[in-house]
Amino acid sequence: MNLPAGFRAAGVAAGLKKSGKPDVGLLVSDVPAAAVGVFTTNRVQAAPVVYTKRNLRKGSARAIVVNAGNANACTGRQGATDAKTMARETAKALAIPPGQVLVASTGVIGVPLDMAPLTAGIKEASGRLNVNGLDALAAAIMTTDTVAKVATAELSTGSIAGVAKGAGMIAPEMATMLCFIATDAPVERSVIARGLARASGASFGLISVDGCRSTNDCVLVLANGAAGGDPIGDDHPDAAAFESALGEVCRSLARQIVEDGEGATKVVAITVKGATTAREAKEAAMRIGDSVLLRCAVHGADPNWGRVLAALGTTRIPFDPAQVDVWLGGEKLCEHGAPGPGDRDKARAALGEREVEIVADLGRGEEAVTILTNDLSPEYIRINSEYTT
Amino acid sequence: MNLPAGFRAAGVAAGLKKSGKPDVGLLVSDVPAAAVGVFTTNRVQAAPVVYTKRNLRKGSARAIVVNAGNANACTGRQGATDAKTMARETAKALAIPPGQVLVASTGVIGVPLDMAPLTAGIKEASGRLNVNGLDALAAAIMTTDTVAKVATAELSTGSIAGVAKGAGMIAPEMATMLCFIATDAPVERSVIARGLARASGASFGLISVDGCRSTNDCVLVLANGAAGGDPIGDDHPDAAAFESALGEVCRSLARQIVEDGEGATKVVAITVKGATTAREAKEAAMRIGDSVLLRCAVHGADPNWGRVLAALGTTRIPFDPAQVDVWLGGEKLCEHGAPGPGDRDKARAALGEREVEIVADLGRGEEAVTILTNDLSPEYIRINSEYTT
Repeated sequence: MNLPAGFRAAGVAAGLKKSGKPDVGLLVSDVPAAAVGVFTTNRVQAAPVVYTKRNLRKGSARAIVVNAGNANACTGRQGATDAKTMARETAKALAIPPGQVLVASTGVIGVPLDMAPLTAGIKEASGRLNVNGLDALAAAIMTTDTVAKVATAELSTGSIAGVAKGAGMIAPEMATMLCFIATDAPVERSVIARGLARASGASFGLISVDGCRSTNDCVLVLANGAAGGDPIGDDHPDAAAFESALGEVCRSLARQIVEDGEGATKVVAITVKGATTAREAKEAAMRIGDSVLLRCAVHGADPNWGRVLAALGTTRIPFDPAQVDVWLGGEKLCEHGAPGPGDRDKARAALGEREVEIVADLGRGEEAVTILTNDLSPEYIRINSEYTT
Repeated sequence: MNLPAGFRAAGVAAGLKKSGKPDVGLLVSDVPAAAVGVFTTNRVQAAPVVYTKRNLRKGSARAIVVNAGNANACTGRQGATDAKTMARETAKALAIPPGQVLVASTGVIGVPLDMAPLTAGIKEASGRLNVNGLDALAAAIMTTDTVAKVATAELSTGSIAGVAKGAGMIAPEMATMLCFIATDAPVERSVIARGLARASGASFGLISVDGCRSTNDCVLVLANGAAGGDPIGDDHPDAAAFESALGEVCRSLARQIVEDGEGATKVVAITVKGATTAREAKEAAMRIGDSVLLRCAVHGADPNWGRVLAALGTTRIPFDPAQVDVWLGGEKLCEHGAPGPGDRDKARAALGEREVEIVADLGRGEEAVTILTNDLSPEYIRINSEYTT
């Protein structure tokens, strides 16, 4: 897939993954690009997150270097040094200043990076950069992902392309996986920052795979203006179109992350309506989505709507259980907090599909939010029992 | 096992469980007993919880009636009527006032009780009451439990005996399973209430199987004074001994619940030390225990200590990651937030045992708390995928 103008990317196998699959990626702009990021809210932040947050203060960047197979998290001073070395080696290979390089890592926590193969991988990737490198980059950031995740959108001038990795340790509160987005639109940083805050809140902020927030993850946007045209500032008529297209790319990538959740066999859309505020609706929907009991029931196509109420009851929302209605697979199995008129067999059949809908109406107000999650399967446990071994 | 003096119990199979196993239990005191309870903090509370809380205001009770197989939760007005009917039928069978009967239910949510077999079961159980009925009562309250849970303690005058059921939907915040405790010590309500608050906080309040709080669960204590002697009030020298023995019974039952957690293959003791307050230590330990990622790693004997830090980082505790040490199976795998000197192979071997110890030192203060949880296995998912079907 072609990158926006003025961008090149590559992905190579450097030997950090035992599987021998691609594990080092580069995304490079021909000229300094406006750069904006959002990061995990976990108090424990990996060395590359700390490094990249600091580096982003400059507001522009030429390159993102990323490795999979090792998160460079909980690695102490050595980790900080290694993140810096990743940037320096990338800068050397590309003949750009080290301050123009952003760094990201994903993989196992608490193991020092193996810098020799990583450095060799960076050199190799820098020699393979090309305008068709999006898929190679997407492949190089995969960990337990089973498919590469790419999304693009067209603008009236230019385009947006993004890659993401997810699979596990996915929960809300901003960016909790790796996502890199490039655009050649001449958007100013303030437009990107506002658009990214909204887009990530309405996409990565509304998905949960396992309720675990990672130490590493971030969404980075580079805008190099190579498509030409006037700078798109806050008051420019194209600012809204850019925000909308950025939102589309983020939503697509977020959905791909849920579809490829570790061990997932289903995508579950949980809608909470009848809330007094969107924040309340989101809290309720996330609590339902994080209930391992309910996610087991969905896995087994079991129309156990009581687990929806039990999960709601642990939120701080002062709802009246006797006002709550619940639909599973379109069937109203709970009405006013008691068994409803819906057909359990139809609900069971609907829960057996690849796409599952759960709706809860709190009966308190007019606000609604939909989040995406997936079922909890024995395969999730297998994957996460064996991850470092 | 013999009950304390003046108590009788029974458990019978009334046909509420499809398996045909015992599902209706009675615990009866010959005379009105001082009665105290603690209940789930879930906003969605089952009909028997609502009924029993109200009835407890009287301060005394003669009997507890309990059924397994159906939680009588999310059952609307019919559920309230059915809980009342359970009390009335029990009162009739025992020839006591209905106001002297406490009611509990456990099992599937959102399905109306089948009252005909339940009523017949209550009558049958009332005819089988005997002083050796503790084990039969313990068996009658099991749901996905694989073993009955009983604990006893001796006092200088009299004794304490308790039964509990747990298995799934076990999380902190007071009583989140069924537990019935009988004592013939002449303890006053204020002593029981204070003792129970402390005992349940230090036992059922420090365990988690899956982070899910139930709609139904409660701990009820009946003290009938049949052992004789002066009333044990707040200032009585035996009050402390009673509190200590009650704590012992609760801790034993709590541990049995964790040992028999749904699908559990290991008991995991998580200690957080170096906290500024006990509340902070508990929050941190519970967050570690609720990490499905970490519980998968423990299941697979994978010394993935980074998941301990990642979980800690999602609490509100303002700790410094560079001050945190983590031990898995006695091996210090993390020192100052980075890889520590411990032996990974020894840690792996220790994680393969039935009893697993995880310790995290926040490096902030002097307070410590230990909680108990278990590993997350594919069997947990199987159980909870198929529960209502």
